[in-house]
Amino acid sequence: MKIAIDAFGGDNSPDEVIKGAALAVEEYGVEIFLVGDKQLLKSRFDTLSVSGRNVEIIHADGIIGVEDNPTDIRKAKAGCSMGMTLKLVSQGVANAAVSAGSTAALVVGGTMVVGRLKGVKRPALATIMPSTNGFYMLLDVGANLECRAEMLLQFAVMGSVYMEKIMNIKNPRVGLLNVGTEDKKGRELELKALSLLSEAPVNFIGNIEGRDPILARCDVVVTDGFTGNVYLKVVEGMGSFMKVGFKTIFTTNIAAKIGYLLSKKGLKKFADSIDYKEVGGTPLLGCNGAVFKAHGSSDAHAFKNAIRQAREFVKRDVLREIEKNLKELGSL
Amino acid sequence: MKIAIDAFGGDNSPDEVIKGAALAVEEYGVEIFLVGDKQLLKSRFDTLSVSGRNVEIIHADGIIGVEDNPTDIRKAKAGCSMGMTLKLVSQGVANAAVSAGSTAALVVGGTMVVGRLKGVKRPALATIMPSTNGFYMLLDVGANLECRAEMLLQFAVMGSVYMEKIMNIKNPRVGLLNVGTEDKKGRELELKALSLLSEAPVNFIGNIEGRDPILARCDVVVTDGFTGNVYLKVVEGMGSFMKVGFKTIFTTNIAAKIGYLLSKKGLKKFADSIDYKEVGGTPLLGCNGAVFKAHGSSDAHAFKNAIRQAREFVKRDVLREIEKNLKELGSL
Repeated sequence: MKIAIDAFGGDNSPDEVIKGAALAVEEYGVEIFLVGDKQLLKSRFDTLSVSGRNVEIIHADGIIGVEDNPTDIRKAKAGCSMGMTLKLVSQGVANAAVSAGSTAALVVGGTMVVGRLKGVKRPALATIMPSTNGFYMLLDVGANLECRAEMLLQFAVMGSVYMEKIMNIKNPRVGLLNVGTEDKKGRELELKALSLLSEAPVNFIGNIEGRDPILARCDVVVTDGFTGNVYLKVVEGMGSFMKVGFKTIFTTNIAAKIGYLLSKKGLKKFADSIDYKEVGGTPLLGCNGAVFKAHGSSDAHAFKNAIRQAREFVKRDVLREIEKNLKELGSL
Repeated sequence: MKIAIDAFGGDNSPDEVIKGAALAVEEYGVEIFLVGDKQLLKSRFDTLSVSGRNVEIIHADGIIGVEDNPTDIRKAKAGCSMGMTLKLVSQGVANAAVSAGSTAALVVGGTMVVGRLKGVKRPALATIMPSTNGFYMLLDVGANLECRAEMLLQFAVMGSVYMEKIMNIKNPRVGLLNVGTEDKKGRELELKALSLLSEAPVNFIGNIEGRDPILARCDVVVTDGFTGNVYLKVVEGMGSFMKVGFKTIFTTNIAAKIGYLLSKKGLKKFADSIDYKEVGGTPLLGCNGAVFKAHGSSDAHAFKNAIRQAREFVKRDVLREIEKNLKELGSL
């Protein structure tokens, strides 16, 4: 399997990308196309003395940043590291693309360069989030700030396939994010989506509230990209809040410091469990190819995990399964 | 000062309401109108053997539940415990109203029975939330699922007054909840609101993301009621997640159990700090009177806190201050 990586995406590029790619080759036996300025990448490989085994450097000019117009990925910046990474997938040279670069550009590039799966209205960014008893998928987290009910319906189908195929959850429970569980709750969008989802070939459990997925009450949460993005960042903020709290708790006095030493292992494990970087990349579901967004602050470990997820995505043929399930939807 | 309390709102009514009212009389020297079925309340007072000092029972027939049509508070259910509580304020008999009953009914009742402050487009539910360094106000958390930019502008003004007057924060920093900090981010609503807020007589710091308020980067967060409600419940869910996590961490083995005993005090303090019930009630800002929503699961302590907040609201003349500041807005 061949995976294309944007070497110049994210806060820690290219060094952590390089290290993550090398780790992935080692652990998962994948082949990597590392995309970006060839000369610079070669020199970083030497400096870091990382093995280049099964890593091929593909040259690209420049990068697309968050300050750039995301649509530039189609023309003015088509040759940048992210643009070339996506092109390798659209040309069938690579099986998957991973980038920690500008989310907006990746959404445009995924949709326009790689293209949409047949019948997909809009691809969605779909994040795996930690719950008290495992994981759930939240989508959309920002590809489409405003959505139509038909889009939420497709998100439900795509998310269900992903959770079943990649996260091994049988018959995943789909919830519609709302301000209450009663059927009449919500905006026009939720009212319409509820009616569509009730008829859909997914395990729809109805309206859910913001706390429910966290308490492991559903496996796939569908919402518009504005709400999903806020949700995601509140979870992130609460994770940081907890870390700050731990620091205060366990440094107040000697007793608490000893207390920390005695419970350190469990605390570390818990802090990791709420750190969603651990899970890896965020797929842009609905593209006609495997496109993964890695977190902007990804380190080598996170890049490795994103590559692992992309590999599973290809291996388990998630695309064909999504296509099949969306077709079923069409005949409703 | 006279505060009217809906004795039949919330999961723990009327017993915890009665106890909370008695505590408030004791601690804050307020007078309470306890509104609901007179006979039942009298018998509960006897059974609980709670002092009835400075508590006057006002009879009301029935209650309005979450399953009822919220607009019934205006006519069919005008005489219920919540309806009568609000009427006491609109008639000038009580200075403030507190209820833990149906949020939707309280929003309708606050807006229609108590009425709006002059110039207010729509009242907003405004919750005080815990941050790593104190508190911030989030509004709207559900009174208006869809908002216009002008409403967010008024929310900013009302929230600023509240934080300054009640929470003693000088020149509170106002943030517009968005999916990124750049000016061009967001939906039509955020783009318009950004431009209005930039000209407003508040300390506007621009767009903020979901994690920022939690990390104490602003004091007032304005957003539409759908997004705000999801935000609130995600925070709640993450609080529960932490409690579940603590339980797991500190019961894994003997060492961790001892660790817990040594750091118990700090852990308890932290758990309380993220439990936003502690802060008390949620004002419905923009009504022509002090209207507070207590959390549905409030216990006596939470009711007491909500009453304290309502008392401060009246004492510091927040209504007149809001009116004054909204007038300034009008001349922009």
